This record gives sequence, structure tokens and C-alpha cells, in this order.
Amino acid sequence: MSLFSPLLEQLVHALRCLPGVGPKSAQRMAFHLLARERDGGRYLANMLQQAMELIHRCKQCQGFSEKKICDLCTNPRRDHAILCVVESPADVMAMEQTGYRGLYFVLHGHLSPIDGIGPSEIGLEKLKKFLQEISPKEIVLATNPTVEGDATAQYIVQLTKPFQIPCSRLAHGVPIGGEIEFVDGNTLAHAFAGREIVS
Amino acid sequence: MSLFSPLLEQLVHALRCLPGVGPKSAQRMAFHLLARERDGGRYLANMLQQAMELIHRCKQCQGFSEKKICDLCTNPRRDHAILCVVESPADVMAMEQTGYRGLYFVLHGHLSPIDGIGPSEIGLEKLKKFLQEISPKEIVLATNPTVEGDATAQYIVQLTKPFQIPCSRLAHGVPIGGEIEFVDGNTLAHAFAGREIVS
Repeated sequence: MSLFSPLLEQLVHALRCLPGVGPKSAQRMAFHLLARERDGGRYLANMLQQAMELIHRCKQCQGFSEKKICDLCTNPRRDHAILCVVESPADVMAMEQTGYRGLYFVLHGHLSPIDGIGPSEIGLEKLKKFLQEISPKEIVLATNPTVEGDATAQYIVQLTKPFQIPCSRLAHGVPIGGEIEFVDGNTLAHAFAGREIVS
Repeated sequence: MSLFSPLLEQLVHALRCLPGVGPKSAQRMAFHLLARERDGGRYLANMLQQAMELIHRCKQCQGFSEKKICDLCTNPRRDHAILCVVESPADVMAMEQTGYRGLYFVLHGHLSPIDGIGPSEIGLEKLKKFLQEISPKEIVLATNPTVEGDATAQYIVQLTKPFQIPCSRLAHGVPIGGEIEFVDGNTLAHAFAGREIVS
């Protein structure tokens, strides 16, 4: 594809570093910005530059922040007695929707020895230090319900045994608004085992 | 949605100026860049900044270029005897795939009096000047096969009458690889009317 403008071609190429953006979308984005959103494009350039330079991982929870210790960790209104361990910053957003208002620890991944990702790569040493500092009353292991997520949770359970802090996992069950017909057998078995008396 | 990092929040907001990017995709893009593509993010910021400042419309064909007259217009290997009028820069890319190697004129829209888009908004004065300069042997009106596109083509036919240059429109017909069953009646009627003797 030749665009007859080397700079335009470079812009299209650069846009492809965004996830889910192929050559056609990148071209559409470039034309859209040039035709109708010059100010938006300038603003995006500025924000990208600042964010790439200034945003780093919080020294405590490993969440993204432009401060050394993020606003969430320093917020006195958060419940410091409960710590939720998640795999990604997007999971923090998801957990916030539940009304959870404790602290977080972001692993930025899960244990995967085959890919060379061990305990130090996901910051488990930092997690230990964090636990010593805040000594919470409960750790919620909200890693994904996958083989790797479960293994990571299991590893953290072992790791935190000396601290004698109870660890919990999110419940499995039938999703709200879902249809039982389409729920997989494994999930349904969990839902059955965890059934509750209602009357 | 609170991200606990004002800068991250601003980045997510800025990414939403891209077409087809909603709040969830913008968040995913921001996290992806911060976690795995810092260099890509910096490159994109740089390219965006340069493109927004330097890319303008070519004085001749109105296509996007960082030069006053774009590479396409100045390329001596392009056929100056044929001019293709298109609605958008993306249409130039599409026409290039056909093997067409003449010149272009990009309208950046179509006539739409109800939206206040008249002949001067789509640069028809420039088109006249361009025609006087290059005096092509044919004008291909490759505007979209819509009511507005057809009206725009018709307007250009009237406009170019004094130049006595033959104007053509792209043929309508059955798309290659399509199934006749699913072709709409109007298109099929055009295809039937334009049928060719093959033996």
C-alpha cells in the first residue's frame, strides 16, 4: 500500500501498535484524524507522550500511576483490612464495579514457567512486603478462573501461610441473567455444590 | 469510571477521539501501551504530532500530503490524460488496487445542501482550475453510488461541459465472487442491462 505521503504512511504504521488495529482500521483512523479531528489528534499525541514518560507502576500495589505510591494506596477511605490480588489493571476496574473498596495488588500476569514467568516476574516479593506493611485481615485471590490463574492463586496461598491471613477465591456459579441451558457443566457443578437454602 | 490516575484517565479519554473506539477499547489500548508497547506509544505520539502539523491538502488534487503539491500529482509516470474524481482519500487507495494510474481529485465529501455542503465546500472551483491546467482526455466520476454521490457526479458533468471532456461513471453490476441470489434487484437490473456477448 502506497499512500503517496511518507508521513501519512508512517502514521498509519504507528497506529498499528494499538491492539486490535489492522491496516484498514489504521488507515481509517489516520484519515479521520486528518479530516475531522486535528485537535483531537494533537491532544492524543500530547497525552500519549506524557503517559509513556510519567506513568509507572505504584511501588506498593504495582498498579499504573504517575505517582510513586498511587492514589488508591494512599486513600485513607479505602479499607486497608482487605487486599484483592488481580492479574491486570483492567481487573481492578472490574472489581471496582462490585462495590469493593479495599486495596489491590496487581500481578501484571500469572505464573507461567513455560514462558519464563516466575514469582519474581509477577512481583510476589513485593506482595510479601506489602502484606507486612498493611497486615490485612483477608486476601481475596481474584486471579482468572483458568489453569494458570488457579495455579497462581494456589502459589500465593502457600506464600502467605506464614502470615496466617485467610485467603479467599471468588465464587463460581451461574452468571446473573444467563440461561442455565447454556452454562457449562463444570460451572454448573460448582453452582450446585454452592447452592443456598432460601426458605 | 475512576482509574485512580488522572493522567491515565486523560489518556483513555484522548484515545476515544479515534473512530470506532469506545470506553472499553480505549482502556484496553491504554493498558496495552503502558504494559507492553511504551516505545510504540512514543512513536505514535511523535508521528501524530508531526502528521497533525505537517499534513495538509495538496494544492492541486486536495489529497493529503506534507508537500504543497503531492507526490502523486508531480509523478511524471502517472497518466495525466485521465482524472478520477473520488469522495475520500480512502477511495484513492481503493482505486489504486484496480491498476488505475492516472491522476485524482479528492472532494472530501459530496454535495449535501441540507448540511450546508455546496460546490465550494468540496473544492469544485479547484477542480475547474486543475482541469484547465492538465486538460485531461477523460474524467472518471468515481463518487459513491448513492443519491448524494450521483447528484455530485451529475453536478460535475454540468460543470465540466464547457471543457468538452468526456465524463464516465464506474459500471454497476454483480460483484466478483458474489452470489446472484443475494444481489439486490437494482444492481442486478444494471448488470442485466450492461450484459456482454461472450461468444
